[in-house]
Amino acid sequence: MTNGTRTEPDSAYGPGSSDDGDIYRRFLADLFGVMAYGELSAFERMSSDARFSPTLHDRTVLGRLAVREYEHFECVTEHLVKLGLDPEAAMRPFQPSVDAFHDRTRPADWFESLMKFYVTDAISDDFYQSVAARLDPATAELVLGLKEEAEPAGEVLEARLQQALADDPRLASRLALWGRRLVGEALTQAQRVVLERAVGGGHLQGPAQGVYGDELKTLFAELTRNHSRRMSRLGLTA
Amino acid sequence: MTNGTRTEPDSAYGPGSSDDGDIYRRFLADLFGVMAYGELSAFERMSSDARFSPTLHDRTVLGRLAVREYEHFECVTEHLVKLGLDPEAAMRPFQPSVDAFHDRTRPADWFESLMKFYVTDAISDDFYQSVAARLDPATAELVLGLKEEAEPAGEVLEARLQQALADDPRLASRLALWGRRLVGEALTQAQRVVLERAVGGGHLQGPAQGVYGDELKTLFAELTRNHSRRMSRLGLTA
Repeated sequence: MTNGTRTEPDSAYGPGSSDDGDIYRRFLADLFGVMAYGELSAFERMSSDARFSPTLHDRTVLGRLAVREYEHFECVTEHLVKLGLDPEAAMRPFQPSVDAFHDRTRPADWFESLMKFYVTDAISDDFYQSVAARLDPATAELVLGLKEEAEPAGEVLEARLQQALADDPRLASRLALWGRRLVGEALTQAQRVVLERAVGGGHLQGPAQGVYGDELKTLFAELTRNHSRRMSRLGLTA
Repeated sequence: MTNGTRTEPDSAYGPGSSDDGDIYRRFLADLFGVMAYGELSAFERMSSDARFSPTLHDRTVLGRLAVREYEHFECVTEHLVKLGLDPEAAMRPFQPSVDAFHDRTRPADWFESLMKFYVTDAISDDFYQSVAARLDPATAELVLGLKEEAEPAGEVLEARLQQALADDPRLASRLALWGRRLVGEALTQAQRVVLERAVGGGHLQGPAQGVYGDELKTLFAELTRNHSRRMSRLGLTA
């Protein structure tokens, strides 16, 4: 472990030393790496899907949300640079699993893509907020600050989904099924990312250890509960 | 012509009166309507295509250019609102032709999409700059201001295309052919938009009349010349 990062060509971390600060830096590289790649991917998928919106108004609203994902991506990569880390190297380890998630959850139509962004955005927000509790204050502020918006994406998407379900109640059973599939895939994905990096990157030690182990179960139970609550607000069975 | 706009459901224009100011407002609604819809579409297509970029770096660079298109779109629609015009109504007449342009010019791969944005962005810039010369100073400033950027999209795209052509010289003949097809479609498109709106919307009168008629030929000859110059800079035959 001591100088394993030295020989890894894709590593975002600086020259390895095994003190706590170094382990924390690696943890931050992983955290911001997966956030950044997730946001870049969400931007691309969301803006592509926006094109199939039923109205021009929907296209512009979805476009704006996609742009916001890109702005978050830029904010996070700037922070990586400030930490002396290479954003591309930090993102790369998460590319296969995030891409696989999107490949396994291709929306069949515009309403399914709306639902996909609603569900996955909320779960990743919850996830990062929970992680933020374990970060130094400056980093926590950055992570939480990304979500402080005049008009949160979740609210915009929820309102639009409620309207769609009111316009066409037959959507409900399809979207409920799709919601269950999405939450399953998202949690599997999140778990894989955490475990892969926890084992592979040696993050079981250090200040971030609290995220792994038993607490992980508690966290995932909470993510599931919050998801069910959101589905209820849409009048759907989770 | 006097109150034709009153009965048109999609009209972005306010209640019709046939004075010069009103004709100019209609011209601005058309100009900003086609700009806005063109930018919204470019944003969606570009960000979708960015996903197929060969490297993460390319994805982030293309994503940034796409976001800029969305920012221009917002800037133009804000201006329409400031003029008391409805952006969606202003965009709607141009939706079929812009969509048709994109449908007829689907890139076969990432290099073709790079080329498409390079060619079409430059032609529309040239076109709007030429129109700007006929606008009131405040409006002209807005139109020209959109193009004043620290790192113009055209330069970024040109540099990337030059690199791609240096990396794989076999791309040259395919991209040259594609460039010819693109410029043909773009000019046909531009001409159709101008003529349709000129005839349908009665823009042959008023301060904007200079754009139509003989000057149109001169303008299109200039657009073609500039395109050829850009192709030469890439080492391609126009």
